[in-house]
Amino acid sequence: MSSADARILGEDSVRADQDAYKQLATLAARGVAVVTAVRGRWDVAATVTDFLSVSYDPPTMVVSLFSLSRIAEAVTASGRFAISLLARDQRGIADRLGAPGAPLVGLLDQVPHTRREPGAPIVVDGSLAWFELRVVATQDAATHVLIVGEVTATSAAARWGARPLVRWRSEYE
Amino acid sequence: MSSADARILGEDSVRADQDAYKQLATLAARGVAVVTAVRGRWDVAATVTDFLSVSYDPPTMVVSLFSLSRIAEAVTASGRFAISLLARDQRGIADRLGAPGAPLVGLLDQVPHTRREPGAPIVVDGSLAWFELRVVATQDAATHVLIVGEVTATSAAARWGARPLVRWRSEYE
Repeated sequence: MSSADARILGEDSVRADQDAYKQLATLAARGVAVVTAVRGRWDVAATVTDFLSVSYDPPTMVVSLFSLSRIAEAVTASGRFAISLLARDQRGIADRLGAPGAPLVGLLDQVPHTRREPGAPIVVDGSLAWFELRVVATQDAATHVLIVGEVTATSAAARWGARPLVRWRSEYE
Repeated sequence: MSSADARILGEDSVRADQDAYKQLATLAARGVAVVTAVRGRWDVAATVTDFLSVSYDPPTMVVSLFSLSRIAEAVTASGRFAISLLARDQRGIADRLGAPGAPLVGLLDQVPHTRREPGAPIVVDGSLAWFELRVVATQDAATHVLIVGEVTATSAAARWGARPLVRWRSEYE
């Protein structure tokens, strides 16, 4: 099969198109992070791979969240969130916070974390580095919402010696 | 130093904040891809790490491009682009297309590629998989523009046996 062989979306069934795309999209290797936000009395946290650093001036990041998720609601309602970059030895945390329906009560009981100041989203201890952000824009993109955040604080240090947790072909590695 | 030790942006110089952020942002591991678009008679191509799959329904991707770059201009002016996911053995292509000022004349001479139909952006031969997209929205984000694209075609096959090219700590690996 040559490089020119293509699947033209819309020629077959929509479902077949989506299934084919889902498979191919897993080939994009991605670092893994935890997004956190505060919703009323609760901390909300979710494992994500779809985030970007988009600018240094000012420091700006973007995260893509499922529009109907608790974490999207918490981030947009509070206007602030944090991103903690996971190390390879934090795979258990990625698994724990990657389950969409997990109860908020006790969600962080087994996740070592720190809150820098009252009202701030928690950051994950032992992460490679972390960033606190305030929401400056949102953009709907099909089923997801792109949250654009300006970085307001970062970890003072980083775990430079640790390897990153990476997701590729639907597996952590 | 504990996890709570923070750099609060805006307390020190803006330059120091940006430098600190730049360093920490390199800890986010990222797959590497080539974005291509057609601008008049020319093919424009650039190596990127800042792209996302944001939705399956419909298949939608986002790429973050420096607003003043040739590739951003080509993508927004033509309304279509392609993303080719690079394999580890394609590092030379990432280097070649990662130099911002490279002349467009001859840019693709040493990059094996295929154009699926007249007017389409080229895709890189030997990539893990490729996607053709049409622009459905754009969102400015500081110095960059987020291009939201709906996938119109994908490679029929993928190099499932190949490893991905990954960028981490400002190095390819």
